[in-house]
Amino acid sequence: MSKFSTYFLMEAKDVIDYVQEKLSSFFPDQTELACQEIGDGNINYVFRVWDKQSAKSLIIKQAGETARISDEFRLSTERIRIESGMLQLEAELAPKLVPAVYLYDDIMHCFAMEDLSNHLIMREALIKHQQFPLFADHITTFMVNNLLLTTDVVLEHKQKKGMVKNYINPELCEITEDLVYTEPFNDYKKRNDVFPPNLDWVEKEIYSDKQLRFEAAKLKFEFMNNAQALLHGDLHTGSIFIKEDSTKVIDPEFAFYGPIGYDVGNIIANLIFAWANAALTITDSQERIAYLNWLEKTIVEVVDLFKSKFLMAWQDYATEPFAKEDGFANWYLGKVIQDTAAVTGLELIRRIIGLAHVKDITSITEQNSRIIAERICLTAAKDYILKRFFVENGLDFLEILKKSAAKYL
Amino acid sequence: MSKFSTYFLMEAKDVIDYVQEKLSSFFPDQTELACQEIGDGNINYVFRVWDKQSAKSLIIKQAGETARISDEFRLSTERIRIESGMLQLEAELAPKLVPAVYLYDDIMHCFAMEDLSNHLIMREALIKHQQFPLFADHITTFMVNNLLLTTDVVLEHKQKKGMVKNYINPELCEITEDLVYTEPFNDYKKRNDVFPPNLDWVEKEIYSDKQLRFEAAKLKFEFMNNAQALLHGDLHTGSIFIKEDSTKVIDPEFAFYGPIGYDVGNIIANLIFAWANAALTITDSQERIAYLNWLEKTIVEVVDLFKSKFLMAWQDYATEPFAKEDGFANWYLGKVIQDTAAVTGLELIRRIIGLAHVKDITSITEQNSRIIAERICLTAAKDYILKRFFVENGLDFLEILKKSAAKYL
Repeated sequence: MSKFSTYFLMEAKDVIDYVQEKLSSFFPDQTELACQEIGDGNINYVFRVWDKQSAKSLIIKQAGETARISDEFRLSTERIRIESGMLQLEAELAPKLVPAVYLYDDIMHCFAMEDLSNHLIMREALIKHQQFPLFADHITTFMVNNLLLTTDVVLEHKQKKGMVKNYINPELCEITEDLVYTEPFNDYKKRNDVFPPNLDWVEKEIYSDKQLRFEAAKLKFEFMNNAQALLHGDLHTGSIFIKEDSTKVIDPEFAFYGPIGYDVGNIIANLIFAWANAALTITDSQERIAYLNWLEKTIVEVVDLFKSKFLMAWQDYATEPFAKEDGFANWYLGKVIQDTAAVTGLELIRRIIGLAHVKDITSITEQNSRIIAERICLTAAKDYILKRFFVENGLDFLEILKKSAAKYL
Repeated sequence: MSKFSTYFLMEAKDVIDYVQEKLSSFFPDQTELACQEIGDGNINYVFRVWDKQSAKSLIIKQAGETARISDEFRLSTERIRIESGMLQLEAELAPKLVPAVYLYDDIMHCFAMEDLSNHLIMREALIKHQQFPLFADHITTFMVNNLLLTTDVVLEHKQKKGMVKNYINPELCEITEDLVYTEPFNDYKKRNDVFPPNLDWVEKEIYSDKQLRFEAAKLKFEFMNNAQALLHGDLHTGSIFIKEDSTKVIDPEFAFYGPIGYDVGNIIANLIFAWANAALTITDSQERIAYLNWLEKTIVEVVDLFKSKFLMAWQDYATEPFAKEDGFANWYLGKVIQDTAAVTGLELIRRIIGLAHVKDITSITEQNSRIIAERICLTAAKDYILKRFFVENGLDFLEILKKSAAKYL
């Protein structure tokens, strides 16, 4: 009887045994395997396993029965089926933009995948003010291929409904509904975590803004009900491994059928956090301007390349009979861009005043700089939400950010 | 080994054996059972079984592996699980407004339910120009309770997602997507069935209307993607048994999570077919005016009672934290009413020029009267779709019908 025929939460030494039993062909010349837990996410356990001689390596990711960050979140281990299934689907739809999956185990609720230790976590790299000229191109291919190609525009509709069913993801969606769409707007569950010097400002500008809360309510129902495409569901710069010539998106355990703009808006918002970090922490003005220029160009390109690739893929892959109706693709995409603007604003707000912060902002040590960085993001956020119906292209996104920045810098 | 341990399509004599084996307690004093196939729908087989002495009776409904109307539609027998499950859920949410279910059998793909032979099929009764003063009250209770109470406004969101999953209904939704949302607008699959004297008119007014087709395309995506509430999915007057003091909704095999307005709009459109029938076939003017008055009052009441009960139930049952936000219920309901107007138009069009007609119209024997009845419905339909954003209440619905009628009568 295998040690792994009943579920338990593995430690590093168990993972070595596991790999020797289940993945012996991966390390054919193994002399001695080593293993280390390297996870730093909020939810799961991540082990790196390597052969000390050949340096060949892989990753084992296992789900616990509660979230790693807090026992308060009890979570179905179902999320690991969703994550490994998604990675395999994404590898088909957008080759080379996700890590390869080697094995999925529905007893141990774990899977084995490609080790990306030669890449950096994008958020860390952006905080170090590194540039990735291919990022906009890579991430827009990833999004267009995974999003448009799983909609009713492209998929046979019965097959799409089967996919909706397969990726119903109640517990992870609940986290998003609470943390992104509800709590930030009135500290609903008293879990918000506002930087103390900005408390009064947030009270006045966010909690007291009834129109903002009203729009958030509408957008929450859009998030919960609009089964448009199979989303990654947590597409921020901490879910992206990157190096100069390669971008790999990880951690799709939040995947479900939702509005396309949710993924795109998360990318834009997290580029804006990097922008705010750079604007407030790079002291050399020439260096600062150069880095901000690259980030601004990237924000504009993410929107505009997404749009142009989306329309090209629509031409190539649409099967829905109405899809070729004059103007329909543009109408559909226009709505996606409005949703994107709204989510950009929602993500900016929740990461600054909600429970889960981003290091781009929290690592700004000078108090006045952090106050300003937060207010730039929050002021822009309100425009992204309230003026979303006027946002059409990359420059419109940039203009909102620059207008807010001009107010404080 | 029971004869019923493997699925087969039953005939009347098998049904008697089935009832004797599975429902012996229902006919405790049985002397002799009789059985007759009484189905007249497009999809399933319906048997009435009665005790010749006591006259006690019940209905057995069984699914075949193709639709009854045409072998072209191959359908999963899954629909009978959905139908019997829905009837039981509806009985909880809206007591007394559906037939009681006695048994569900997932081997024989059939279920047993209350016999409603003392009721009339509402469409037949309306063609005979009978009035049902309690109908608007009954059907609005049915709709508000089944629809609002299965949304994210009321249900805990994880539970709601479980329901969405349970009622994913690809094959039946495909029928609606094809017959209601696609084929009528350009004879897409060449299955439309237009009354020949109206062919040129339909060519000019429907097929050539690019704006109408564009709106239909948008609405099709709304139907496919907006998982708002658990719909009946086929709520026309042929799915309603009625008598003076009782209304019972049957045939929920099209149930799935979709936009609330789909059910409400089907009710309104089918009342309009009855109106068109009465306007063109009742020769006595006093009698005609009286009947049209009752139908007009009913159309207005269905919309307005739906609205007022919806807002009351929202007050009583909403659990979503944003639901009590000032004005949010009215915003949400306003959108439902616009969707209702659009579906009213779609149902009017597809029942007149699509594959599946209604007897209200086809039973108008005088050719010129039928031409006029159809044009009244189709002209109103275009307004319901194209002007839906201006439709707010029952009188707005009535005004569109009356304006169209004034053009032709």
